[in-house]
Amino acid sequence: MALDPVKALFFDVFGTVVDWRTSIVRELEEFAANHDAQADWVAFADDWRGLYQPSMDAIRRGDREWRNLDTLHRESLITLLSRHNIEALTEEEIDHLNKAWHRLDPWPDSVEGMTRLRKKYTLATLSNGNIALLVNMAKRAGLPWDAVLGAEPARAYKPLPHCYTRNAELLGREPEQCMLVAAHNDDLAAAQALGLRTAFVARPTEYGPDQKNDVEATGDWDITTDSMTGLADALGC
Amino acid sequence: MALDPVKALFFDVFGTVVDWRTSIVRELEEFAANHDAQADWVAFADDWRGLYQPSMDAIRRGDREWRNLDTLHRESLITLLSRHNIEALTEEEIDHLNKAWHRLDPWPDSVEGMTRLRKKYTLATLSNGNIALLVNMAKRAGLPWDAVLGAEPARAYKPLPHCYTRNAELLGREPEQCMLVAAHNDDLAAAQALGLRTAFVARPTEYGPDQKNDVEATGDWDITTDSMTGLADALGC
Repeated sequence: MALDPVKALFFDVFGTVVDWRTSIVRELEEFAANHDAQADWVAFADDWRGLYQPSMDAIRRGDREWRNLDTLHRESLITLLSRHNIEALTEEEIDHLNKAWHRLDPWPDSVEGMTRLRKKYTLATLSNGNIALLVNMAKRAGLPWDAVLGAEPARAYKPLPHCYTRNAELLGREPEQCMLVAAHNDDLAAAQALGLRTAFVARPTEYGPDQKNDVEATGDWDITTDSMTGLADALGC
Repeated sequence: MALDPVKALFFDVFGTVVDWRTSIVRELEEFAANHDAQADWVAFADDWRGLYQPSMDAIRRGDREWRNLDTLHRESLITLLSRHNIEALTEEEIDHLNKAWHRLDPWPDSVEGMTRLRKKYTLATLSNGNIALLVNMAKRAGLPWDAVLGAEPARAYKPLPHCYTRNAELLGREPEQCMLVAAHNDDLAAAQALGLRTAFVARPTEYGPDQKNDVEATGDWDITTDSMTGLADALGC
């Protein structure tokens, strides 16, 4: 079939492999308990994620030189701490809270499905997260990557084409030998336009119970499923 | 002790983790059997490795733009095939032979020692090999990397300082939080000068029974041992 040439699976990470929202709320509530701070922490988590795409835009446009995601997350965090009148934190406390993004928990099916997939394919991150973030996350969560790649080694944030093509090249692969696995239709559309194969993994509660976007596949993807174990089934692993 | 801050172990790969010489001779002899080719394959392997350092020099000096090691290995291979009057190979045959460097076997102690070390430390490559080469090697040999890094993401070949400092930065670590593990005194000297901790793993037959250089430690390294299991012992893993 058309998927026979596929040798490498690239994974979007935030939302696709890990449940960032539940994890960030947990981290914020731990922080609150230790600092006697008050806020709507679910809203704080959503606001932090809300600043994610805008924080990369100036770099995508070339109006700002490269900054990795730890840096952008920290700038957004400082904005939100100020907005919520949370003050008098040390640099170390801000760093620890910022690294909540290094401590995200996987969806329940991720490790099992990926462990099966890894027997047949090379598994690599294709995330806008930086390498240190992804390595620390993988070590804590037991994610079985063969390679931790993405925006940082390409110095280009998704969905810029160079991010996809450069990462395929770093694995020594042609685009058609690679499949992007993602819970986001726009990410898959960018990859498909460049010749990569595509797998949509539905994560309809990534943004909470009222999620509107990416609840289902809206493109002609090679595989559509709702878990990493389902993806392993679909790929005969 | 002074090694308490160490969080990440960076490994030189060729010679330190894998036995390139025995593996390349094996690959060349397989090639010879399939192609009815005649040569002194041990000498061919040594010549191929002999062109390794010179092949990076123009790039180190900035006289040539970046090329990854697969490309440099292939240029050296073509030189040696011509020198040995081995002709009429297809591009695919040359590519397969060139990727012998993706199929190197580990020293007998490597996987066991590194598996122990990985429970306590982040393990990353710090090799002049490119990412595809290192990922394919790890998958075949079972090397338990947390991150596949080195010259390619830094776009600088060892022993240029940027290669060591950029890789520490990619893991989000200060130099003193990193230890370089290598069988080569000059590699360790470059790392030590930048503040990294150092472990010498003696591989006195890397270059065969008559090896002259790097038979023993010649610097004041933090750890000196002769295997990855010995390194795990020394680091309490």
